[in-house]
Amino acid sequence: MRPHLSISRRTRRTPFSSRVEAAGASGYTVYNHTLLATSFRGIEVDYWHLCENVQVWDVSCEKQVTLKGPDASRLAQYMTPRNLTDAQVGRCYYLPMCDENGAMMNDAVAIKVNDGHWRLSVADSDILLWAKGLAVGFDLDVEVREPDMYPLAVQGPKAVELMIRVFGEGIKELGFFAIAPFMYNGQRMKVARSGWSKQTGYEVFVNNPEIGTQLWDELFTKGQDLDVRAGCPNLIERIESGLLSFGNDMGHETTPFEIGLDKYVDLDADIDSLSLPALRKHTPTKQLMGLVLEYHRNLSNLDVFVGEKKVGDIRSQAYSPKYMRRLAFVMCDLAALDGATSVEVITDQGKATGHLTSLPFDFDALGLSACR
Amino acid sequence: MRPHLSISRRTRRTPFSSRVEAAGASGYTVYNHTLLATSFRGIEVDYWHLCENVQVWDVSCEKQVTLKGPDASRLAQYMTPRNLTDAQVGRCYYLPMCDENGAMMNDAVAIKVNDGHWRLSVADSDILLWAKGLAVGFDLDVEVREPDMYPLAVQGPKAVELMIRVFGEGIKELGFFAIAPFMYNGQRMKVARSGWSKQTGYEVFVNNPEIGTQLWDELFTKGQDLDVRAGCPNLIERIESGLLSFGNDMGHETTPFEIGLDKYVDLDADIDSLSLPALRKHTPTKQLMGLVLEYHRNLSNLDVFVGEKKVGDIRSQAYSPKYMRRLAFVMCDLAALDGATSVEVITDQGKATGHLTSLPFDFDALGLSACR
Repeated sequence: MRPHLSISRRTRRTPFSSRVEAAGASGYTVYNHTLLATSFRGIEVDYWHLCENVQVWDVSCEKQVTLKGPDASRLAQYMTPRNLTDAQVGRCYYLPMCDENGAMMNDAVAIKVNDGHWRLSVADSDILLWAKGLAVGFDLDVEVREPDMYPLAVQGPKAVELMIRVFGEGIKELGFFAIAPFMYNGQRMKVARSGWSKQTGYEVFVNNPEIGTQLWDELFTKGQDLDVRAGCPNLIERIESGLLSFGNDMGHETTPFEIGLDKYVDLDADIDSLSLPALRKHTPTKQLMGLVLEYHRNLSNLDVFVGEKKVGDIRSQAYSPKYMRRLAFVMCDLAALDGATSVEVITDQGKATGHLTSLPFDFDALGLSACR
Repeated sequence: MRPHLSISRRTRRTPFSSRVEAAGASGYTVYNHTLLATSFRGIEVDYWHLCENVQVWDVSCEKQVTLKGPDASRLAQYMTPRNLTDAQVGRCYYLPMCDENGAMMNDAVAIKVNDGHWRLSVADSDILLWAKGLAVGFDLDVEVREPDMYPLAVQGPKAVELMIRVFGEGIKELGFFAIAPFMYNGQRMKVARSGWSKQTGYEVFVNNPEIGTQLWDELFTKGQDLDVRAGCPNLIERIESGLLSFGNDMGHETTPFEIGLDKYVDLDADIDSLSLPALRKHTPTKQLMGLVLEYHRNLSNLDVFVGEKKVGDIRSQAYSPKYMRRLAFVMCDLAALDGATSVEVITDQGKATGHLTSLPFDFDALGLSACR
């Protein structure tokens, strides 16, 4: 089924929507109430291009939520079990955001602007409402807002070269997950070395729609010889890279331990985090794992079995043309699985056997090498 | 542009999605992270059918949020400026839900199950997170959850007849916005006389997906001679009826006064509502109004003018085949408008003059009669 998407004011357009349309986006989703392209020339063609060249992505749907005021740092710490005590200005921090039961509310990237000002790039849930509810209820001196800001991503191995041409040599100084201000056409914009892929990439936090569209156009003018194209977060690349998606691979029924985010949970920290008391007592009963299937078959459904027993369900999946395997993220019931690593799925050509592994995929350890 | 929608686990399917697809849905949107059809045979054909017959709608996207516990009524009252003191069991209540500044967070329909249990049917924002944040922050003894419940609507003038055939004569006793339990195939389900249209209609709160699909099929078997069809909330009918849409006609920047919800704000009530202190001091500077355009022309953009001065922007609009007018909801800047009622818009055939009116549209007062 390839259904049509009806667009209204509620499914917000962005300052770049006209450019995305002109570039021939062939599929969309709605993310944080905002349009997000899902493919241009087909996800496999887009995938190879992303892995080998450079793309410009409209990721305005990565809504920005700001916490401003004397209690901003306190509120940020409430919302995550990651220890933010030593968080530095000029760095991005990946944050599981959890409620008082330790359940995931969102996974965001946080930037500390200063002690009284944090900014969150949020996944697909209205974290604005959660943060506002906590701020009002706890009577915190903090203003929670969604500013008019439109992230634009430049992703792919040639992203560094293209960004240097537009923003200057200073771009080279930016380490992974660092963020710094750059000037473009007289407008100061923050640029982070980050993005929704594991290819090299940057995100520009556009705060002026008009200058933003000039920037979009200039990236294409200056990147012509680099074969720059409009793109979008790519399902194949996301799965290969083990990047999780809120709403797909996790939700309000998941804890950070169940999706491998243990290293972002500081169980021993003496911090005021809503979720830590519950997480300290939590023993996961399920676990997100990787699944590798040898055959290029389509799945008939998303159940995963050991013999006749259902042991898990597939949350995200794609065929990897690079490793010539179908790859999936599976939420496994640990008791039902009982340590098994060989599992079965139902494909359009009957049952097929697959291999469970930890995430992210370690292709070397799996004995898989890139075909190109 | 008729772009394709990419469906993933994040854009949730419902127990009825296979039926909606089989019935030939031709367009979808994403509402509360859930698929919602927007048209079947085209919105004008769907419209006439809805006004004259009966349709079955999958409105699972009307997410249910339950507040359960000793502080449930307290939390419900916090979230709305409507006085719930005398709210009765067995009735539905339309609630503007506002924050501490009086800004709209959602507009929901609430059902009081008992003093310690409320259920909200919410519009397109994650009210679960707002309610949870307040509950945690204010340390309320209340559990906030999103139960597995899937509203199914039966709408149109022949809805009464069809519902009697399936649920029995008791359906006739149900007054507007009343709700009562009915039995279907051994399963107790609540049925409300309510819906996303101003045609006669019901909503069945399906709490068992398997029995729900049996119910869907039986509505079609028993309604064959009534020409029952699969349908969905219809844009034309919504605009004609003056039904507002959160995210289209209002958002976090709107107060209830600005969208004509004055009668749901009990300014003088001695109740503990977050928004009342701000709303008591609030003087609206903008107002949502109706716009009637004589010509069947398409709009080139959504700006509304008096002479050269922009006085408002169109939030929702449709051509009404019944009144042979283009109808719109316009958010007007009251100072710029300065009492004018004759305004101009830009159409694909040049400027056109329109007439501003209060909402909902009073077609008699406007001198318009239905053509069919």
